[in-house]
Amino acid sequence: MSARAPIETDALIIGAGPVGLFQAFQLGLLEISCHIVDTLPHAGGQCAELYGNKPLYDIPGTPATTGQGLVDALLAQVAPFRPTMHLGEQVATLAREPDGRWRLGTDRGSEFIAKTVFIAAGVGAFVPRRVTVEGIDAFEGSKLFYHPADLGRFAGQSVVVQGGDDAALDTALALVGQAAHVTLLHRRDGFQADPARVAALRAHVADGTLGFVVGQPSGFDGDELEVTLPDTRIVSRPIDALIACLGISPRLGPIAEWGLELERKQVPVDTEKFETRAPGVFAVGDINTYPGKRKLIVCGFHEATLAAWGAAAIVFPGKAIPLQYTTTSTRLHRLLGVAPG
Amino acid sequence: MSARAPIETDALIIGAGPVGLFQAFQLGLLEISCHIVDTLPHAGGQCAELYGNKPLYDIPGTPATTGQGLVDALLAQVAPFRPTMHLGEQVATLAREPDGRWRLGTDRGSEFIAKTVFIAAGVGAFVPRRVTVEGIDAFEGSKLFYHPADLGRFAGQSVVVQGGDDAALDTALALVGQAAHVTLLHRRDGFQADPARVAALRAHVADGTLGFVVGQPSGFDGDELEVTLPDTRIVSRPIDALIACLGISPRLGPIAEWGLELERKQVPVDTEKFETRAPGVFAVGDINTYPGKRKLIVCGFHEATLAAWGAAAIVFPGKAIPLQYTTTSTRLHRLLGVAPG
Repeated sequence: MSARAPIETDALIIGAGPVGLFQAFQLGLLEISCHIVDTLPHAGGQCAELYGNKPLYDIPGTPATTGQGLVDALLAQVAPFRPTMHLGEQVATLAREPDGRWRLGTDRGSEFIAKTVFIAAGVGAFVPRRVTVEGIDAFEGSKLFYHPADLGRFAGQSVVVQGGDDAALDTALALVGQAAHVTLLHRRDGFQADPARVAALRAHVADGTLGFVVGQPSGFDGDELEVTLPDTRIVSRPIDALIACLGISPRLGPIAEWGLELERKQVPVDTEKFETRAPGVFAVGDINTYPGKRKLIVCGFHEATLAAWGAAAIVFPGKAIPLQYTTTSTRLHRLLGVAPG
Repeated sequence: MSARAPIETDALIIGAGPVGLFQAFQLGLLEISCHIVDTLPHAGGQCAELYGNKPLYDIPGTPATTGQGLVDALLAQVAPFRPTMHLGEQVATLAREPDGRWRLGTDRGSEFIAKTVFIAAGVGAFVPRRVTVEGIDAFEGSKLFYHPADLGRFAGQSVVVQGGDDAALDTALALVGQAAHVTLLHRRDGFQADPARVAALRAHVADGTLGFVVGQPSGFDGDELEVTLPDTRIVSRPIDALIACLGISPRLGPIAEWGLELERKQVPVDTEKFETRAPGVFAVGDINTYPGKRKLIVCGFHEATLAAWGAAAIVFPGKAIPLQYTTTSTRLHRLLGVAPG
């Protein structure tokens, strides 16, 4: 248990992807303030993480943008409402309080008591893809590292970097001249990476400053890394550290343990408020399911809009809230901090 | 009946507002071509007509735009699919053919046979607000004109322009020096119009080149216009023409006569495909209703998206169509005419 007092809030949004950000915007228009929690160290979710530089053509009114471009636009849009972001933190627990509110706890010890909860977690939390060698988990943090942000600790060490994408090549190249020995290990002699990075890699391999082995790790005892080569021969070498850059993949994670009804890893919702069977808990975007559901961002925007109205009935019980338009409502202009001429 | 052969099409969209345009885009992604019919002489619907220069802050991913800005962006987005536009034309009739398709006729004699129909008519067709003087309708087109585009016919005439907005002032100012006498008639000495136009009006009134009367028309026999003044006195004067610029307002119009179920002037739809009770006829945007419905553009975008999938099942019966993403699908890139790097 955390020693800190829980944060009380009208709304807590799990997930800072496009739909989570637009959820905060729609709540803001209804004068409901919120906190947003996301496992990634930055806003944008899958859209920024996997499609940051890739094009998007089907956001209505935006003929072309990128994942990051959309996220930047949504961050600018929600900015007037100043949602409090809790990044690099995963919501681990969700339980109902006796008064009907929801208590949430994160893996970093934060606690929230929220009147309404919005699960906008996409296809789940993005976690590094794991090395599949028996017993290797025991060395995580001491000899095995996934996508380490700081490479300083590997200075002077004998290091193997596993992977074949930009992140793997960047890591291996950054360690040249810093680590005692650097070897890139990849399952094939080919890379899903920027040609300039591949050329730099090849040059270092040619002049002997970087090793390159085609193969798969098949055993690790904390000292010796065993590698199976394409011809099934097994070689082994002593190393100080294995750095795995195998990409990241989504995992539903703790959400599966909250007692919510699930249909094939998705949360069923109604189409009136996009509320789950748990009152006050809404699910929007790729994580929800209902008849006709398509996993498209444009659908998540609609779901977040109606979910915000569903939440308003809980946060402001008995209060009739008229639908106002951002075009004409001076109340909304005040909230948005704009003064149209 | 028209002598022309009906246009056969997979999809016909009634309404070229934002939702109608995005409907065409979503159909295009599914390789369904379409025709669009709108009563206004330009695309954009209410959004361009009433909010052209006004701000919109709640289009997701577009922190601020105008009605016309949104319409322009949607026109650019749908451009790769080249929908055929039929503007200045009103769909008057809708009836089912024996083969299950829909036959539509317009007030200008066009006929369509469509596999699917999308009613994206917003709050209805925009029509000029009428002068409420008994018997005056008989003079429409000869002595009474609503928002006339061409003012040449009033040269040398004695004309009264009724109204107090930009359109009324523009019309009165344009007639100065062209008509023999021009009088602006408005119910009060104050205008909902651009200050520069008001200043120009006041200057012409001051130098006697334009008359201004505060009052309401209360009778017209084709020669004498009777006006009731604020103090209830009645004055009358001979005129050649009355030009009414009283704004435009939406009317559901012929849609009410198509035998569709209506709930308070709205068309009930399901939330899976946004289909009406008439198979193959979808209703999207402000014209539809379902539990939770909010009349917001963002909701119309979602409705159009799922309606397009509903139509795909009719246009391509028995064909399984996978959901593809504009980010990664080379098929969608080909359709959109883009070649991402």
